[in-house]
Amino acid sequence: MIETPYLLFLGDAPDPLAAKVAQGIRDWRPDNAVGQFRMEGCKADMKLPDMTLEEARAAGAKTLVIGVANRGGVISPAWKEVLIAALEAGFDIASGLHNLLRDEADLVAAARAAGRQLHDVRVPSVKYPIANGEPRQGKRCLAVGTDCSVGKMYTALAMDKVMKERGMKSSFRATGQTGILITGEGVPLDAVIADFMAGSVEWLSPDNDPDHWDMIEGQGSLFHVSYSGVTMALIHGGQPDALILCHEPTRTHMRGLPGYQLPTLEALRDLSLQLAQVANPACKVVGISVNTQHMGEDEAVAYLQEVEDRIGLPAVDPFRHGAGRLVDALAEV
Amino acid sequence: MIETPYLLFLGDAPDPLAAKVAQGIRDWRPDNAVGQFRMEGCKADMKLPDMTLEEARAAGAKTLVIGVANRGGVISPAWKEVLIAALEAGFDIASGLHNLLRDEADLVAAARAAGRQLHDVRVPSVKYPIANGEPRQGKRCLAVGTDCSVGKMYTALAMDKVMKERGMKSSFRATGQTGILITGEGVPLDAVIADFMAGSVEWLSPDNDPDHWDMIEGQGSLFHVSYSGVTMALIHGGQPDALILCHEPTRTHMRGLPGYQLPTLEALRDLSLQLAQVANPACKVVGISVNTQHMGEDEAVAYLQEVEDRIGLPAVDPFRHGAGRLVDALAEV
Repeated sequence: MIETPYLLFLGDAPDPLAAKVAQGIRDWRPDNAVGQFRMEGCKADMKLPDMTLEEARAAGAKTLVIGVANRGGVISPAWKEVLIAALEAGFDIASGLHNLLRDEADLVAAARAAGRQLHDVRVPSVKYPIANGEPRQGKRCLAVGTDCSVGKMYTALAMDKVMKERGMKSSFRATGQTGILITGEGVPLDAVIADFMAGSVEWLSPDNDPDHWDMIEGQGSLFHVSYSGVTMALIHGGQPDALILCHEPTRTHMRGLPGYQLPTLEALRDLSLQLAQVANPACKVVGISVNTQHMGEDEAVAYLQEVEDRIGLPAVDPFRHGAGRLVDALAEV
Repeated sequence: MIETPYLLFLGDAPDPLAAKVAQGIRDWRPDNAVGQFRMEGCKADMKLPDMTLEEARAAGAKTLVIGVANRGGVISPAWKEVLIAALEAGFDIASGLHNLLRDEADLVAAARAAGRQLHDVRVPSVKYPIANGEPRQGKRCLAVGTDCSVGKMYTALAMDKVMKERGMKSSFRATGQTGILITGEGVPLDAVIADFMAGSVEWLSPDNDPDHWDMIEGQGSLFHVSYSGVTMALIHGGQPDALILCHEPTRTHMRGLPGYQLPTLEALRDLSLQLAQVANPACKVVGISVNTQHMGEDEAVAYLQEVEDRIGLPAVDPFRHGAGRLVDALAEV
């Protein structure tokens, strides 16, 4: 568990896209971020107050979160200087970078000297159990996709936000690096040992109030041969009561797999539901979330209507039109 | 890769069942075992020559394989004495025990001093790639089960043996500890990091002669919620051309999951084939392997006939009646 609130470190981000972790925190947990720290040449801006380390500490920030991708897979000397000063100023540091904070001897030494934590959220810090498959109290929703990177995390976060606004009980349950940094906790599922994948999802989503929803972040796709085992573990460990189908209609092939076509939404619906009902016979598919970012408004609206008519479930782009209709559908379960 | 041939260490096995790893090597790769080493009170016997360490070295043995489960999860002082003497005599040591050889400081020191290897086959020793899903030359067969521990490894080994006897090109590809110790190589799939599971199976079963069969050891079950993600990775990473359905008809519930019923063979057939065809549209289900150990001969024969009539595929118990008919079916693919 990462201590909040955060100071968002944007470093020398070459463009706004490089700071997508910071953007996710800004968009979904604005209360978690008291300010931003930008270095010379930084091209990203979260529209948060620019703060020195001292100002951020005075404003209550407990953890410096690396909200930006690094260049060339190394933590540069310029970054190091800031990170070491942050540790000395009393910050923990949290990172989802591929190269780990704990592998940097100078950061480890500075953290030890200051009595601070280095959180590498790509690496599991918990000894997860083997899944036992027992039913748990409370409700669970999982987004599953026709492909990777079609908007599953966005959908779960957008639904969670609407649910909270409506006074429903909801928790976003992060299963990836960005989600973990946004919420401060979760399971880095793609880094979990095979035997413990489903168990880690059970651990992530324990018993809860009967009217509480866990909005579990999806990963991969049952139809993506590189990562389908991870998706399977989410479906069986998550025991979802409700599935949301996610799709990006302009993809010409599965992400990173030029030889593989995307499945139809109907194929995704039928396969996901069959597998989910092994763990939870009451599971239902309740809605469809479409990422229409590569379509014009008219085209997007027409596409969503066509899908809705064809499949008979609410079909929305939560970015364009909000997640309200998906939450309406969930409230019926 | 573990150097062969082996000396099989049976320790102080309290009963023959405790030595099932040694029995597997004895049954399936008898040429890999030059002898056995038994301590006082050992109740297991592989009907191999009892040898001292020196005799086994003289007979060519290169690796001492721990072929027996240890008691209470510790490597006892009595074992240690033998293992250290073995390292000093020039043996490598291979183990599938839960507690690792590499965690025992005295074994590590003795191995280093003697310049020998400690192989903990539960721990991956390779940095596996992410699966790329590209078709590979050669043919692959995978056994999938209605449950865990229904005879998938046995089926693959029995078919591999018949294929070799017939002069077909075949390799058993181990994905579990016992299989790895039997053949000396493989992937400990249940210990692989989630993102690399399917890639490790691709690595295990690379391009080969067009008429060569990889007999890939199955793991878990698509219907076993604790391990289904591992099975999924085998199906998508393995790209099987042929599936064998495995079943144990007297199970009253899924192994370790009292609340879960076994699926029908038809449900296993349909789901496995659908998933396998994502990676290999030409995949076929070719036969059924039934573990009838808890049935009498008449009952077993009647059951197999009923399954064969119902499903329309050859149904055999390879332990009782041999794997020949399954290999006949494979040869048609």
